[in-house]
Amino acid sequence: MFDKLNDECGVFGIFGHPEAANLTYLGLYALQHRGQESCGIVASDGKLLRAHKSYGKVADVFKNDSIFNDLAGRSAIGHVRYSTSGGTDVRNCQPINVDYHRGSIAIAHNGNLVNADVVRNQLELAGSIFSTSADTEVIVHLLARAKSESLSDRVVEALQQVRGAYSLVLLTETRLVAVRDPNGFRPLCLGKLDGAVVIASETCAFDLIEAEFIREIEPGEMVVIDKDGMTSYHPFDVVKPTPCIFEYIYFARPDSTIFGHEVYNVRKKFGQSLAREHAVDADVVIAIPDSGMPAAIGYAEESGIPFQLGMIRNHYVGRTFIEPAQSIRHFGVKIKLNPVREVMAGKRVIVVDDSIVRGTTSRKIVKMVRDAGAKEVHMRISSPPTAFPCYYGIDTPTRKELIASSHNIEEITKYITADSLGYLSVEGMRETVSCPTTGDCPYCDACFTGTYPIRFPKMKSDSQLGLF
Amino acid sequence: MFDKLNDECGVFGIFGHPEAANLTYLGLYALQHRGQESCGIVASDGKLLRAHKSYGKVADVFKNDSIFNDLAGRSAIGHVRYSTSGGTDVRNCQPINVDYHRGSIAIAHNGNLVNADVVRNQLELAGSIFSTSADTEVIVHLLARAKSESLSDRVVEALQQVRGAYSLVLLTETRLVAVRDPNGFRPLCLGKLDGAVVIASETCAFDLIEAEFIREIEPGEMVVIDKDGMTSYHPFDVVKPTPCIFEYIYFARPDSTIFGHEVYNVRKKFGQSLAREHAVDADVVIAIPDSGMPAAIGYAEESGIPFQLGMIRNHYVGRTFIEPAQSIRHFGVKIKLNPVREVMAGKRVIVVDDSIVRGTTSRKIVKMVRDAGAKEVHMRISSPPTAFPCYYGIDTPTRKELIASSHNIEEITKYITADSLGYLSVEGMRETVSCPTTGDCPYCDACFTGTYPIRFPKMKSDSQLGLF
Amino acid sequence: MFDKLNDECGVFGIFGHPEAANLTYLGLYALQHRGQESCGIVASDGKLLRAHKSYGKVADVFKNDSIFNDLAGRSAIGHVRYSTSGGTDVRNCQPINVDYHRGSIAIAHNGNLVNADVVRNQLELAGSIFSTSADTEVIVHLLARAKSESLSDRVVEALQQVRGAYSLVLLTETRLVAVRDPNGFRPLCLGKLDGAVVIASETCAFDLIEAEFIREIEPGEMVVIDKDGMTSYHPFDVVKPTPCIFEYIYFARPDSTIFGHEVYNVRKKFGQSLAREHAVDADVVIAIPDSGMPAAIGYAEESGIPFQLGMIRNHYVGRTFIEPAQSIRHFGVKIKLNPVREVMAGKRVIVVDDSIVRGTTSRKIVKMVRDAGAKEVHMRISSPPTAFPCYYGIDTPTRKELIASSHNIEEITKYITADSLGYLSVEGMRETVSCPTTGDCPYCDACFTGTYPIRFPKMKSDSQLGLF
Amino acid sequence: MFDKLNDECGVFGIFGHPEAANLTYLGLYALQHRGQESCGIVASDGKLLRAHKSYGKVADVFKNDSIFNDLAGRSAIGHVRYSTSGGTDVRNCQPINVDYHRGSIAIAHNGNLVNADVVRNQLELAGSIFSTSADTEVIVHLLARAKSESLSDRVVEALQQVRGAYSLVLLTETRLVAVRDPNGFRPLCLGKLDGAVVIASETCAFDLIEAEFIREIEPGEMVVIDKDGMTSYHPFDVVKPTPCIFEYIYFARPDSTIFGHEVYNVRKKFGQSLAREHAVDADVVIAIPDSGMPAAIGYAEESGIPFQLGMIRNHYVGRTFIEPAQSIRHFGVKIKLNPVREVMAGKRVIVVDDSIVRGTTSRKIVKMVRDAGAKEVHMRISSPPTAFPCYYGIDTPTRKELIASSHNIEEITKYITADSLGYLSVEGMRETVSCPTTGDCPYCDACFTGTYPIRFPKMKSDSQLGLF
Repeated sequence: MFDKLNDECGVFGIFGHPEAANLTYLGLYALQHRGQESCGIVASDGKLLRAHKSYGKVADVFKNDSIFNDLAGRSAIGHVRYSTSGGTDVRNCQPINVDYHRGSIAIAHNGNLVNADVVRNQLELAGSIFSTSADTEVIVHLLARAKSESLSDRVVEALQQVRGAYSLVLLTETRLVAVRDPNGFRPLCLGKLDGAVVIASETCAFDLIEAEFIREIEPGEMVVIDKDGMTSYHPFDVVKPTPCIFEYIYFARPDSTIFGHEVYNVRKKFGQSLAREHAVDADVVIAIPDSGMPAAIGYAEESGIPFQLGMIRNHYVGRTFIEPAQSIRHFGVKIKLNPVREVMAGKRVIVVDDSIVRGTTSRKIVKMVRDAGAKEVHMRISSPPTAFPCYYGIDTPTRKELIASSHNIEEITKYITADSLGYLSVEGMRETVSCPTTGDCPYCDACFTGTYPIRFPKMKSDSQLGLF
Repeated sequence: MFDKLNDECGVFGIFGHPEAANLTYLGLYALQHRGQESCGIVASDGKLLRAHKSYGKVADVFKNDSIFNDLAGRSAIGHVRYSTSGGTDVRNCQPINVDYHRGSIAIAHNGNLVNADVVRNQLELAGSIFSTSADTEVIVHLLARAKSESLSDRVVEALQQVRGAYSLVLLTETRLVAVRDPNGFRPLCLGKLDGAVVIASETCAFDLIEAEFIREIEPGEMVVIDKDGMTSYHPFDVVKPTPCIFEYIYFARPDSTIFGHEVYNVRKKFGQSLAREHAVDADVVIAIPDSGMPAAIGYAEESGIPFQLGMIRNHYVGRTFIEPAQSIRHFGVKIKLNPVREVMAGKRVIVVDDSIVRGTTSRKIVKMVRDAGAKEVHMRISSPPTAFPCYYGIDTPTRKELIASSHNIEEITKYITADSLGYLSVEGMRETVSCPTTGDCPYCDACFTGTYPIRFPKMKSDSQLGLF
Repeated sequence: MFDKLNDECGVFGIFGHPEAANLTYLGLYALQHRGQESCGIVASDGKLLRAHKSYGKVADVFKNDSIFNDLAGRSAIGHVRYSTSGGTDVRNCQPINVDYHRGSIAIAHNGNLVNADVVRNQLELAGSIFSTSADTEVIVHLLARAKSESLSDRVVEALQQVRGAYSLVLLTETRLVAVRDPNGFRPLCLGKLDGAVVIASETCAFDLIEAEFIREIEPGEMVVIDKDGMTSYHPFDVVKPTPCIFEYIYFARPDSTIFGHEVYNVRKKFGQSLAREHAVDADVVIAIPDSGMPAAIGYAEESGIPFQLGMIRNHYVGRTFIEPAQSIRHFGVKIKLNPVREVMAGKRVIVVDDSIVRGTTSRKIVKMVRDAGAKEVHMRISSPPTAFPCYYGIDTPTRKELIASSHNIEEITKYITADSLGYLSVEGMRETVSCPTTGDCPYCDACFTGTYPIRFPKMKSDSQLGLF
Repeated sequence: MFDKLNDECGVFGIFGHPEAANLTYLGLYALQHRGQESCGIVASDGKLLRAHKSYGKVADVFKNDSIFNDLAGRSAIGHVRYSTSGGTDVRNCQPINVDYHRGSIAIAHNGNLVNADVVRNQLELAGSIFSTSADTEVIVHLLARAKSESLSDRVVEALQQVRGAYSLVLLTETRLVAVRDPNGFRPLCLGKLDGAVVIASETCAFDLIEAEFIREIEPGEMVVIDKDGMTSYHPFDVVKPTPCIFEYIYFARPDSTIFGHEVYNVRKKFGQSLAREHAVDADVVIAIPDSGMPAAIGYAEESGIPFQLGMIRNHYVGRTFIEPAQSIRHFGVKIKLNPVREVMAGKRVIVVDDSIVRGTTSRKIVKMVRDAGAKEVHMRISSPPTAFPCYYGIDTPTRKELIASSHNIEEITKYITADSLGYLSVEGMRETVSCPTTGDCPYCDACFTGTYPIRFPKMKSDSQLGLF
């Protein structure tokens, strides 16, 4: 249950299909969980790029057929966004689309650049103006200034100047480009549909449009698709890839396959490992829906303690919620979750969630479970303590807001008023995904370990983290 | 998975609270699953009734604080609606509020009257005009024409002329009335909050506002609340109550307590009974989310076959969904559900759902499961075959559209292309809720048995069922 | 310049045209000046009435082609409304459409009934319920309760029970009825277009759709149009007609012909008479646009003093206008009007307006003219002092708000700070429209004389005039 | 009557007022006639620029008080726009606001640059990217690349690279800059209000907020306002100013004073000159409202033929207008104008309009006047034939669409079916504004004479004029 450390972005691209924009819309629909704040599509008819983007969810922003008439063409890219950086100005909606001396280009970006500020300063000094506060605009400017002759070389020339996380799709009048940064922080998948090439952050987007999942775009790989077909490049210095393990823990959809595994299975195995590490005598295992479900099922399976639906989620929760003005009560998680009393009354309850950020939500959940009659409440978290902010595209709060950065397990247990609290260990987490339990991890788990695969220009103090 | 036989209505009322309208809004929020098409609130400040109602979900219709300023007063009623009868004209949004010779009155109704047409004809002949096509307006007219001196007597006088299902809340300038028809088809619950009296279709509405659940309004009971307190009446001829068993199977929220039981538990027991009745060798039990979850967990528990999340629901599905124009594919259930491949690949899969209406959705689900790699697909339904339409407030299609009305199990199995199909038997269902397995049932299970507790004026042919 | 005593309603009807709803929309467009608050259309396809109505102007309420697809049929009626009675609840938008024992009926009403409250009480006592606060709903109820066999007889039976001003169009599945009250307070015109019959409040609606103006519906006349043609009835007791002279002075469009004369010409003649009655040495005549223009042109012509555009109107004034929060200035008329300085600087200026209601607007105008450099400001009003409220459909304020009800000319002159003030005399006004200058007037000029052609049940005190 | 050659832009700026944004809103309100398509405001609180802009009219785009809370600060600029260049993408709404290496800047532009394409190409080659299709963005880029130390020098450095028409307001965190191009094509006025400095396209904006009109910004002048006061610069090479005479003829509001004269008076004198040049025996002079009114009054005064309101304008005409689908009739000007029959029936009518563009509207007007009964229709145009497109900011069609570019007076008379047609001569027009009747004109009258004060890089063929 992870509300502030919520979402980031999802990208989609398609080349060579008569209904490119409409399929992009469907792809974004499936990727909506990666960003609910704004979305957009840019389509190309071979000569002109046309855009439609706005604040709102996919189904609201694209609610008229007529929009798709305006997005003619056989190639398109799309974006859903939560806003890891940049404010809420409408200009920040992606894909960003601009004109430059070689024509038009649109770009959709998932991830976060660590040297965006530095490069932006350099670009501004050289005369660039910035219309958005998104770090993505830096890439657009670098592209416009690149001297190379071919589009692929220019993309490389531009990206060699930035560092950080980027899973990108770019669209020109006649080409679609997909690139994943050398570390491969964020997922990016390649598929095909009726002869068209399809790119998406997660495979669940392919499932909806019935595209075939071919493989993932590799860390450091760039693919360029045009009317003559697809070409793959590996233009960057090779580094050890470090895909984001948090995609497995919380962010990706459980029915997606990323980084070589189906998310549901990984998540369930985390629950099984958690059960081995933090066994406790109890009567029932419940999950915090929806993200805690697979781990809870794994925990129950491993422990032999029955799994029950102890918490029901209200799926009609919208953006607006008007609390009684004079109320002394505080709503919040209550508006989303309600306990099933008979499941918990008089029982020793194990509550499985994916992570604890500030601790305030867990504290409310423990109270709800206890109010529903639970005799004991044992909190089990299917990841290690989140003690470090993410600089690569997950919207975590600053370090000092992360309860695990300044409190030990005992203190957190007390704060959330649980009878016991068990986090999956870093070793257990790594082992579950078949990694060495010490030393270098083939995933980025910096949010748990503080070991950041890419340094940022100057180490920022917490007070500067407003950007994230 | 029950999309056409979907929703009906939910009602809420509160008397004696300074933030009556805002708490009604919260109550409707919790009852949103009972009707997503339109909603409304009428509040009384002791002198005037004021209304706000519109098409849309609660969070959309009530999205500005200012609306609540216009809904001043210490008492209010609210309604969410799917439309069991009446078209989509904005005048049909409830609560209905009118002026008559004794002042103003507003009414919110859950259920369906079986003699609405007959009474409407009589009223029209006597000079009444109808502004809506809702059967509820009949009650308003009867109330306006009632001769009795007291409000409570007038309500009784009016209701004695109608037959069918009604869980009602009525609001006048100074009183709140809650009534449940003698059969008690639909639930209606009584609670209190800080000295205020609260009424709601389901207890989940009390949970959200932290009201205390006192008891259900009994079948045939009417309670009248005014500044002097609450009075209970039992003005109707006593009949054997027949609450709707379908509320347990599908309609109510699993975290609600209605008809004396928590819905989750009943639903899970249906799954257990189903496992006993229709055992099959298999590797995994999956549910069609969200309504099939409790029964699937019960089935898994009873059978010892592991429960897994095999289907992931996209919770961002909105009203609008624009399919590719030239697509030969048919979306539909795909936009809502996506299989988790690893759960099913190479497995013998038991799929638990709550009901089958037309069979088309089940057919698509079986195909999805098989496409995900399942070796065998065994469909298990946690209710008996739905073979008869409901006339008391559930939005079923006409008889001939119900696949079970004209096809036997074998034929349905073939149609949905499952390897096997098992429905919970009527006896098993009754037994699960501690009823005699033959003869009179203390629930209305007419949709399964055709035994309608209340006859309708003239037996309608299917072609006349457009009303439903 | 007459902002509070502003608008009332306009009606339109058409029978026998394949694009009935669309032509009704165009007719309402031309009648928009008669009511900008809400509007609506009800169309009949011979079997069903379908409605679309809402708050807003015609161009905003009917902004999609698709609305007209929903309003199929060869007959339709429409309404624009300012709200002479009834609040702003959406239920009050007209046409009112209901079902009763003989089918469906819709009604659009221009005018005000003086005994609506009394009849409403009687109807409520007989069991009727009221969904709106409009007096028009009284007519609908009377119609529903009428015993006569034919529609025309029922309309007469209903209307014989009400008194006041009504120019009505009614639509049933198969008939269109147009009726004007015996006094003929409000205009109602009859035209034809390609074999279709057309009804409209003013002829300017015919001009737009290129319908031919046949004649006015006479006071006390009812015409019934069905597939067999048009029949005219004169079912009411004959009284001396008293059409509203204020339609000439301010309300109707100058390009319309009503009560036998083109409004522009009458208005200009008022200005000529005014010039004869209140001559003054001056350099320039200016008008308060737009309603004061014809009279100012007439004044200039008669006096020989040149007419100039001294005030420019901002035609983009919308409903919302946000004044600076901390401003000590008061906007108001300034947002609508701005003086042309060179026209007035150093000049003796005659300002012609159609009426003075509260005096506050005139006061601001005099100040604006003087600030623009005028040496003298002579206010000339092309109607007599408005000293009495209207009970027949013009939205005047209560008597005590009308400055002329409690102040003499000298006092008003002083209040508005003009150098002189001249009103057209009652005699002059009557003479201009060829009426006897004393005794009974063939127009209703009650707002000037207090001689009300129809008495109201009980004389209401000013404090009860909220209705108006 | 000039619908296609309609509007362009209006700008407003204020420095040093606690309600800067709100006063900008009021200023834009008064300038709405200069552009109804989109509008925007950027405000500075001394540290940050904040923007609100959108498609729509001022009253619609700024309809909530809360918008002004978001636009905090003591300085602001605003823009209304019709779109002389640039499409309808939301990114094209002005003011444009961007970040560059020295901070943030916003710019609002009235006019058109003739070398925008060339400079844009150069900038793009140097690496600039363009987010809009507006020529204004060129200026922003030049500003960002300017090397000078002070803001004023940088503005000059940037503007020395562009040619054409620009009346600009620029806002930085701490400064407001207003510049008018050396030719002074478009008006730009300077005022003060309570110690604040105010800039506006026309003085009518000052009138509304009760600011004092000080003087016009001179052609080639730049004023920079900061907390220390206002400084004036004349940084450009001096050329002979050529303000746009078409502002007098059609575009500016008649109550504004620009180029040293009140527009109403100039326009009226055009009418008087026209009467002298093209006298004709007639009974009545009418105007095409609203722009033809002053000239018609002048014509009537000079000729002694009475002026009447012969055409009534429907002021409720909105953006959308849905014509009957099957109609053989063509609406168009009918929806805006309706004749007053009695004014014209049997009369010889002089119709005064400000210009003829394509001729189609005039043709419809002549037909309307004749259909209203006129015996003769004499068209009089208060400007010379519009035969050449404008490249400096007025939205004229391409040359070949201008009827006067390819037809002589006789042919146009025949096309519009008038009995006679008279245009004001170029000499008469110049004389009226006290200019030499031959040779160099102190106004730009290129649309009449083809003498363009500023050459454009390459003479564009008509087919390239899509930009305009």
